[in-house]
Amino acid sequence: MRTQVAIVGGGPAGLMLGRLLDLRGIESVILEARDREYVQQRVRAGVLEQATMDLMDEVGLGERMHAEGLVHEGVELRFDGEGHRIALSDLTGGRAITIYGQQEVVKDLIEARIGSKLPLHFEVSDVKVDPEQGTVTYTHQGDQHRLEADLIAGCDGFHGVCRPTIQDVLTVYEREYPFGWMGILAECAPSSHELIYAHHERGFALASMRSHAITRMYLQCAPDAEPLPDEEIWDELDLRFGMEVNRGPIFEKGVTPMRSFVVEPMQHGKLYLAGDAAHIVPPTGAKGLNTAMADVALLASSFGNEAALQAYTQRALERVWRVQHFSYWMTSMLHRMSDDPFETQIQRSQLRYTVSSQAQATALAENYVGLPFITA
Amino acid sequence: MRTQVAIVGGGPAGLMLGRLLDLRGIESVILEARDREYVQQRVRAGVLEQATMDLMDEVGLGERMHAEGLVHEGVELRFDGEGHRIALSDLTGGRAITIYGQQEVVKDLIEARIGSKLPLHFEVSDVKVDPEQGTVTYTHQGDQHRLEADLIAGCDGFHGVCRPTIQDVLTVYEREYPFGWMGILAECAPSSHELIYAHHERGFALASMRSHAITRMYLQCAPDAEPLPDEEIWDELDLRFGMEVNRGPIFEKGVTPMRSFVVEPMQHGKLYLAGDAAHIVPPTGAKGLNTAMADVALLASSFGNEAALQAYTQRALERVWRVQHFSYWMTSMLHRMSDDPFETQIQRSQLRYTVSSQAQATALAENYVGLPFITA
Repeated sequence: MRTQVAIVGGGPAGLMLGRLLDLRGIESVILEARDREYVQQRVRAGVLEQATMDLMDEVGLGERMHAEGLVHEGVELRFDGEGHRIALSDLTGGRAITIYGQQEVVKDLIEARIGSKLPLHFEVSDVKVDPEQGTVTYTHQGDQHRLEADLIAGCDGFHGVCRPTIQDVLTVYEREYPFGWMGILAECAPSSHELIYAHHERGFALASMRSHAITRMYLQCAPDAEPLPDEEIWDELDLRFGMEVNRGPIFEKGVTPMRSFVVEPMQHGKLYLAGDAAHIVPPTGAKGLNTAMADVALLASSFGNEAALQAYTQRALERVWRVQHFSYWMTSMLHRMSDDPFETQIQRSQLRYTVSSQAQATALAENYVGLPFITA
Repeated sequence: MRTQVAIVGGGPAGLMLGRLLDLRGIESVILEARDREYVQQRVRAGVLEQATMDLMDEVGLGERMHAEGLVHEGVELRFDGEGHRIALSDLTGGRAITIYGQQEVVKDLIEARIGSKLPLHFEVSDVKVDPEQGTVTYTHQGDQHRLEADLIAGCDGFHGVCRPTIQDVLTVYEREYPFGWMGILAECAPSSHELIYAHHERGFALASMRSHAITRMYLQCAPDAEPLPDEEIWDELDLRFGMEVNRGPIFEKGVTPMRSFVVEPMQHGKLYLAGDAAHIVPPTGAKGLNTAMADVALLASSFGNEAALQAYTQRALERVWRVQHFSYWMTSMLHRMSDDPFETQIQRSQLRYTVSSQAQATALAENYVGLPFITA
């Protein structure tokens, strides 16, 4: 079997790449290890940058996002019991973010893919990629398959099979943080109509949402912490935000470790990595999904252009490192990083400065709504 | 003997405080451990913020500074062999810095003090302060003296006697850096008409100046390094700047350790600390002298106002921490901080962003030219 682009991974990166290629008349096959149900339910990111919103529009899939997504024109930084709004849109010439769950993006992309009758295989196993030959072998519905492609896109996430295939040629840049996020989803209205990033001596907290009826909240915790009982989570949230947050039945909770991770190059032979397969950010800047979208926008526009493909790593990493720095900066400004009182004072001064200097607030805002995607 | 304000330390902070008090009709006595010659020759800071320049004008001592000082409207950040100008004045509504050595400021202030026939005693020894009683005892020209004052200003620097007197009530915030600066003064024209801050994999370098004929340069080095032979210093400077710098006879060289240090409170009883007696910054942001000036401007304007004096620590520290954060930020962006390749990439991304984002460049510029002084 032959195709132009074999896409390993049917998450947002792989599906968006397939869509972009389709619109350019380029064939692809998408292989996903999980079933459709799982992929569509998987709760991950929920903040779309302006450029991701624009990309959804560009590929003709923005309708539901505009109908159901919540456009936010600001975020709040909260410390010392006071909230300070960063006016994202005012500071960036009208750019904004949209709250629209990753799984919703995935649903829209899957529906479009299936509607176009393009190959998207779920529950694929035994995937093996050969970056030199440009072949992918896999098992699907009991049969073994071999796919030959001009290009293999490794969109299979941090734990996927693609990156390990070329690990001998990779330089790894990594930072582990001495904490994680304890996240909850609860059935209640968000406590604020915009996101709240709170810095507190007991640790960071984030108030987010999935919709007008679903609250998403996070607490900084030990990286290996067990989720607290519901009541304790709510009490701790009240404490860290310095206000009584809305409460409701918690229907999901879990602890995520925090990591910064980048490999270089992002390509070898015919294999090109995109999204979490190549890099991970701590979620503080809401950059994971968006950076994956930036990668595939660049990759799709580079296909068929040898010089652009050669430059893929360099051009992608330029933006990846911007996002890495921003995520690292937000993380280290907002979390309790250590017991060092000097560091705490520095953080607080930086927070006061960020909310009082138009220049520094603009720097935060332009990164938060996202710098433009680069295309070939 | 009685006076209103006993000023311990005849460096720029103590002398400026004396001048400000004099202009407000407040008596003071200044006690300095060294002789006049030493104080006027002591090479320290050389970059005056806009607000320090304004203060020199305000106290009627700006004439020589304007005649001999070099006004700079920009600085250069240099990395990857390329220079990028931060247009300080364009980004801050016309504010600027002036290159005018600390010892020149000191000369101007001493001349004014002596011209006004106000007490300024050099070569004072055995200084002891009593913060509760408001007394200072000391030996001068072989005689013991006892000075009673409404307020004692501890302007005697990091190694002075005032801060240890109240150490039991102080909280210390401190950060030591794993490097120092090897500094030189040389007889040659500066290699650039503006300062150059260079980030290089071998370490930070700074090209500064004292005048059109005197070059001041620094190299990041081990904190306990011995100064290199002249030739090796020049070669290393060429390497780190990625260009051939002007060379000339080196007439001074030395190694300075880098430290961040703040005590809180900055006052106890009748003793008020100002400048290096209360806080030290790494020199990367050129903030040491300027922050001392900010302290004494606040202290002078607070004298006689009990509420303002009570609030001295809080108001001074607000600005001190801003300056601490800025100095820490500049230091960690520009130096080789560790062997961690993740950190190096983050630094480089931050540098590229700082020189390409108007918002981030403005944040650097407004801190570099200095935020306004606060007065009571």
